[in-house]
Amino acid sequence: MELNFPDFFKKDLPIRTFISKKLIGVTTDCSVQDAAKKMVEFSISSLVVLKKDKVVGFFTEGDFKKKVIAEGKSPDISVKEIMNTDLINIDINSEFKDALKEMIDKHIKHLLVEEKGKIVGVLTFIDFLDVQRQKIETFISRE
Amino acid sequence: MELNFPDFFKKDLPIRTFISKKLIGVTTDCSVQDAAKKMVEFSISSLVVLKKDKVVGFFTEGDFKKKVIAEGKSPDISVKEIMNTDLINIDINSEFKDALKEMIDKHIKHLLVEEKGKIVGVLTFIDFLDVQRQKIETFISRE
Repeated sequence: MELNFPDFFKKDLPIRTFISKKLIGVTTDCSVQDAAKKMVEFSISSLVVLKKDKVVGFFTEGDFKKKVIAEGKSPDISVKEIMNTDLINIDINSEFKDALKEMIDKHIKHLLVEEKGKIVGVLTFIDFLDVQRQKIETFISRE
Repeated sequence: MELNFPDFFKKDLPIRTFISKKLIGVTTDCSVQDAAKKMVEFSISSLVVLKKDKVVGFFTEGDFKKKVIAEGKSPDISVKEIMNTDLINIDINSEFKDALKEMIDKHIKHLLVEEKGKIVGVLTFIDFLDVQRQKIETFISRE
């Protein structure tokens, strides 16, 4: 079986293809433990933090490792103590390769996706793989 | 600036290109907190668990989220309580696209890399990006 992987990358697919518009978030006073439960429930590795429906922060499971477990902190602390407020956004009409370049340059695994000045989703490499999965399976079944 | 990203994926690069042979691990009785500190120190998102120099388990920061924080467990528990013993390996001579296919199929972000029956490293997509970074920078500077 030959998997013609590179073909999938030839397309300059827009980020729009990879994200659902469902933005999953918690409020600033949510505990780290409740946030982790929510991430497990939705099988995600990051969450946005909302204040009055505006995204004010973002954190990943890497922040749990670094700022909670390695520091010996209680999971009762609120997410605002571990969230990143320096948000890295990418426009929803950008191409996937631009998102990947941004991830490489900044050495990050997640990007906040912006549409008309509003954050509408989070892009990770795994999202990309999920979207490709069906195409790859179709390709394999043709071999 | 046009980044000719797809070209980098045309090469059927072997996994060997992407991993260093330095295997970072902890022993089964290491605490989750100490393991997290080690991961932060080395900027990694997973660790192998060793018993008498043999790899007996593996865990990621996702396991911290799911099995420690979401469950409200103490970071004093040992890593053997959260490690995965069903290890997913790939041969060091496989090509990157095979590793990616394995990640897609099993929906995982890390693969243990095996050479002559021994685990010698861990492969993640970030490793791949790190290796590409220099090539991409060289490419950009030529524009």
